[in-house]
Amino acid sequence: MIIVMRKEATEAQINHLVEKLKEKGLTAHISRGTERTIVGAIGDERVLQAVPLEAFPGVEKSVQILQPFKLVSREFKPEPSVVSVGPVKIGGGHFGLLAGPCSVEDWESLRETALKIKASGANLLRGGAFKPRTSPYAFQGLGEEGLKLLARAREETGLPVVTEVMNVNQVELVSRYADMLQIGARNMQNFDLLKAVGQGTKPVLLKRGLSATIKEWLMSAEYILSQGNYDVVLCERGIRTFETYTRNTLDLAAVPAAKELSHLPVVVDPSHATGRRSLVGVMARAAVAAGADGISIEVHPHPEDALSDGDQSLLPEEFDQTVKALEPLLRIEGKKW
Amino acid sequence: MIIVMRKEATEAQINHLVEKLKEKGLTAHISRGTERTIVGAIGDERVLQAVPLEAFPGVEKSVQILQPFKLVSREFKPEPSVVSVGPVKIGGGHFGLLAGPCSVEDWESLRETALKIKASGANLLRGGAFKPRTSPYAFQGLGEEGLKLLARAREETGLPVVTEVMNVNQVELVSRYADMLQIGARNMQNFDLLKAVGQGTKPVLLKRGLSATIKEWLMSAEYILSQGNYDVVLCERGIRTFETYTRNTLDLAAVPAAKELSHLPVVVDPSHATGRRSLVGVMARAAVAAGADGISIEVHPHPEDALSDGDQSLLPEEFDQTVKALEPLLRIEGKKW
Amino acid sequence: MIIVMRKEATEAQINHLVEKLKEKGLTAHISRGTERTIVGAIGDERVLQAVPLEAFPGVEKSVQILQPFKLVSREFKPEPSVVSVGPVKIGGGHFGLLAGPCSVEDWESLRETALKIKASGANLLRGGAFKPRTSPYAFQGLGEEGLKLLARAREETGLPVVTEVMNVNQVELVSRYADMLQIGARNMQNFDLLKAVGQGTKPVLLKRGLSATIKEWLMSAEYILSQGNYDVVLCERGIRTFETYTRNTLDLAAVPAAKELSHLPVVVDPSHATGRRSLVGVMARAAVAAGADGISIEVHPHPEDALSDGDQSLLPEEFDQTVKALEPLLRIEGKKW
Amino acid sequence: MIIVMRKEATEAQINHLVEKLKEKGLTAHISRGTERTIVGAIGDERVLQAVPLEAFPGVEKSVQILQPFKLVSREFKPEPSVVSVGPVKIGGGHFGLLAGPCSVEDWESLRETALKIKASGANLLRGGAFKPRTSPYAFQGLGEEGLKLLARAREETGLPVVTEVMNVNQVELVSRYADMLQIGARNMQNFDLLKAVGQGTKPVLLKRGLSATIKEWLMSAEYILSQGNYDVVLCERGIRTFETYTRNTLDLAAVPAAKELSHLPVVVDPSHATGRRSLVGVMARAAVAAGADGISIEVHPHPEDALSDGDQSLLPEEFDQTVKALEPLLRIEGKKW
Repeated sequence: MIIVMRKEATEAQINHLVEKLKEKGLTAHISRGTERTIVGAIGDERVLQAVPLEAFPGVEKSVQILQPFKLVSREFKPEPSVVSVGPVKIGGGHFGLLAGPCSVEDWESLRETALKIKASGANLLRGGAFKPRTSPYAFQGLGEEGLKLLARAREETGLPVVTEVMNVNQVELVSRYADMLQIGARNMQNFDLLKAVGQGTKPVLLKRGLSATIKEWLMSAEYILSQGNYDVVLCERGIRTFETYTRNTLDLAAVPAAKELSHLPVVVDPSHATGRRSLVGVMARAAVAAGADGISIEVHPHPEDALSDGDQSLLPEEFDQTVKALEPLLRIEGKKW
Repeated sequence: MIIVMRKEATEAQINHLVEKLKEKGLTAHISRGTERTIVGAIGDERVLQAVPLEAFPGVEKSVQILQPFKLVSREFKPEPSVVSVGPVKIGGGHFGLLAGPCSVEDWESLRETALKIKASGANLLRGGAFKPRTSPYAFQGLGEEGLKLLARAREETGLPVVTEVMNVNQVELVSRYADMLQIGARNMQNFDLLKAVGQGTKPVLLKRGLSATIKEWLMSAEYILSQGNYDVVLCERGIRTFETYTRNTLDLAAVPAAKELSHLPVVVDPSHATGRRSLVGVMARAAVAAGADGISIEVHPHPEDALSDGDQSLLPEEFDQTVKALEPLLRIEGKKW
Repeated sequence: MIIVMRKEATEAQINHLVEKLKEKGLTAHISRGTERTIVGAIGDERVLQAVPLEAFPGVEKSVQILQPFKLVSREFKPEPSVVSVGPVKIGGGHFGLLAGPCSVEDWESLRETALKIKASGANLLRGGAFKPRTSPYAFQGLGEEGLKLLARAREETGLPVVTEVMNVNQVELVSRYADMLQIGARNMQNFDLLKAVGQGTKPVLLKRGLSATIKEWLMSAEYILSQGNYDVVLCERGIRTFETYTRNTLDLAAVPAAKELSHLPVVVDPSHATGRRSLVGVMARAAVAAGADGISIEVHPHPEDALSDGDQSLLPEEFDQTVKALEPLLRIEGKKW
Repeated sequence: MIIVMRKEATEAQINHLVEKLKEKGLTAHISRGTERTIVGAIGDERVLQAVPLEAFPGVEKSVQILQPFKLVSREFKPEPSVVSVGPVKIGGGHFGLLAGPCSVEDWESLRETALKIKASGANLLRGGAFKPRTSPYAFQGLGEEGLKLLARAREETGLPVVTEVMNVNQVELVSRYADMLQIGARNMQNFDLLKAVGQGTKPVLLKRGLSATIKEWLMSAEYILSQGNYDVVLCERGIRTFETYTRNTLDLAAVPAAKELSHLPVVVDPSHATGRRSLVGVMARAAVAAGADGISIEVHPHPEDALSDGDQSLLPEEFDQTVKALEPLLRIEGKKW
């Protein structure tokens, strides 16, 4: 941590700060410049995270030198992590191809979707049983009934199941049926939920919050790892900006950025990111070229009748074409799937 | 709902859409323009919220005409709501002055803070027992112990207590001690939590999410009202933008905007919005002039030692001056407190 | 400037950096921590602005300590500046009340507007002769004819005239007619235009860019001062965010923020910021409470027929009520006008 | 255009609106719903762009049905445009590979850069002679001297030259030396400059503004086309968001989005978008997969000594590797270059 003193800071104020740093077990290194005095805190500055240094008299600003996360960082673990979801691997050259309906609606359409996406090459089945909806009057998901249908679809197709968990009370229930738990964008900083899935044994797909910086996203992953669960996959799904033509703004540079800061795998969700069926396939290709370890695509056999997100769902045959167009790119990137 | 057809839409596509609208109980009104055909859906368009109209063949875009919320709207209830928190009223000319530490830390400093803010004119005590922190390594709050201290401070000062509830499991516990439940910005779309406090009996302070539009904020309030709890106070606390000088960007126009769309009271939190002690007082004054029904200010007797948000906490004497500077403005606005 | 070396930086890399700093006339101060070595550059770090320190081998990041601006800063000039526009003063307790049509359209409506706003208490007449319009097919302003009408309105009312200049070629022409030159939001970083008005003698109203940080806004003001023209008034007019209910998001905290960083006066434009007639008056009041040195409001006698921005223009009688509601606030704030 | 009336709108207000539409040559189509009356304006609604419909009594909101642009739209010209820059083509399957230094600094380093990028496969030389810099104290470019060096580099290498024009006065001068004129992001809504290059004969590279929507970007292109110059190439270079790890947020979905709305070619600048050398190559690959018609990369032989943007410039050998890694992707996408 570096602390910049105000131009008019007194010796007493500098000494007061230095005492505080010593009290926290750090060594102070004072550098007197022509316009400002700067105090460097030597030692593990994470002990200062709770100290409001800018509230100290005479302090102009403080600058953190180290990243605030530890277990998720490349410094802690230089080689890329590989996360297993049932027999499927994601990361370290293994590519996850998640597909399925936004919401689980009924057995017939789920079965049809699961069989078709498997035939096209998907290796994970995604679908929501508990649905976070902006409106209290919108379809809220089938709940446990939906989980049962997902498990039945796994039996029939062999595809491991990825589904969302919305609150701490559901973690046990959802873990009983699912192979991977999804934390939705709106829950990325639901810290109690992060702790709960961190104490579980299922791998976690952590979506980036609508207005979360890359570092905050990694801090949310750190919450999960800090509880003992190291099987976390990050999911970029678009951030909120002023642009309205697309539903969100897909931040593809976040893929290599997260990967240079962290060893965790990163997948991309072009369906939620763009909100437009016409853009899903092309952005899936861009995601692969950006180094993504997987993609997640919404597929529905009858988008007109979808109870949620029909606007952005691909038809099974569109999904099939999308996968075919991905294959040469996956080969160039050396991905296994 | 208005549906704009593509230039090249066929009669069959238009008919297919019209059939769907009829199926949903709506009447279709077709308007053929020189460049586009437009279909108006007559009736309560909320039945179309789950229908992915833009996924229909031939459809270019759909435009919602009615607001998606109902119970919170001015159309539903034209006169402003007044929410009671113990003996204190907020809204309809009654002004809520919330103050207290970011986190409850110990009895001595809480007691000192509570007594001093009361002497300065605060009518509600705010403070966190369960704390949502970006880092898993930061102080997470005293939990139930903190709730007990808050209740004890209420006994000593008479100030009703406002404190945060972070997950569905805590609602009952926190309701036992608090007079008003706060939903934090990061939980504004934790829909299960909204339902849980909506089924309770305590008034709710609903903070606006970091990247929530005014309409999404009102939809989250609608979640609470739809469960039967009509005692909701909105809290503007700054949104996330590209500006970094302030911690967030205080969107003061959201105060009159929310009030023209909704009957719910709106308070403002200049502490979290600005993140800078030097800006808290002046923005509190601006909030009053913008028509706020209350303000919430962080106060700590020793900000240097605060376990959270020390940078933005006012000293009790600074709070006292802030309130004195508010009084003439409150008189002009005709607020009672 | 502080330069943080990577964990694995070599001595040779540190020495190479230190040499570069010496070459630039700075002294290097090396601080070896447990996890990182940090190099402080002692001296006026502005000589490093063009040096890509993060491109140096072994460097992790560089942190600027001093503000990049100088002439506009409070350190350079602690007391607030007062800018004269004809006989009217803005800043240092003097309040500027700018009003008028978005565009100058014809003599009759301009004259009517000017007389009425003057009667209501406006002390400056604003109106556009050259109009920056998003569409090439929209009304582009009357040009020099509009300038002549503005000058004629000044003769009749005594109100000094504020009007926009859009390109370097217009500076001389507009200066012949206007008392203050406005730089529009979309031209805030039209650096050649900033230089041109900086070399002129007319005071400048510098609108904040749609996505400009407070520091970039001050750097644009620095451009003007650096050419010799010290008469600059800043104008906050809303920034672009994800919120769509208002046309822009009025960043009122930018008023006290800019004033703690700089000695320049700051006025607020609630008309462009909100884009909604119903919000203009209340946000004007909030601006005064936030410490603004003036406000700028669009007024049009027949908004329906306005050739631009009719949606947000007040009727003269609405403006009159707005000013009446401002007066008690201006008295509290101790403003003269 | 569709105009939604307020619930309480009177017949007189509806008639008043209908009269206005007729006056503008449009036919009104009235649709009376259960909760709102809606008025559709039949005819070319662009005549309403200057009419402040929301200022009309009784109007709740107006919704534009047609895109505001015309000449740049796919409806106007369905097939993709191909823009020629000297002998090089961009668009319609032709790929532009622009490379060169941020600023032209001296003959030796420009020559070295130009020869090396040509050897690596670049087909256009980019470099700034007039530089828009945030600080008035930073290097402002060599001016005409820089243009001469660029022309000399073209003679030696055969690479056509792309360089920025900053104000209306420079258009003629820069056109004398350059093969393509660049409009910088900060000038995207410098409308007089857009008109000036629209009246010229050189092709234009139009960078997207930092906070410009895709539609505003297309409207700026429309300005150029409306003056008679149809040779416009769009350039996505990152938008401004809350994320700070990257300099800007590269909005790659804007590439296919702009291409479905418009026939103009779109290139991508990963250097300015990311601001990090480590991310340039991977985002260039993602841009190709997203369907870009070209990319623009900053290359400098000695980034440490670059007078601008050294942090994000690639070394010539890094550029060479980047191009090699692009080639298999370009083949998949079927691009010629």
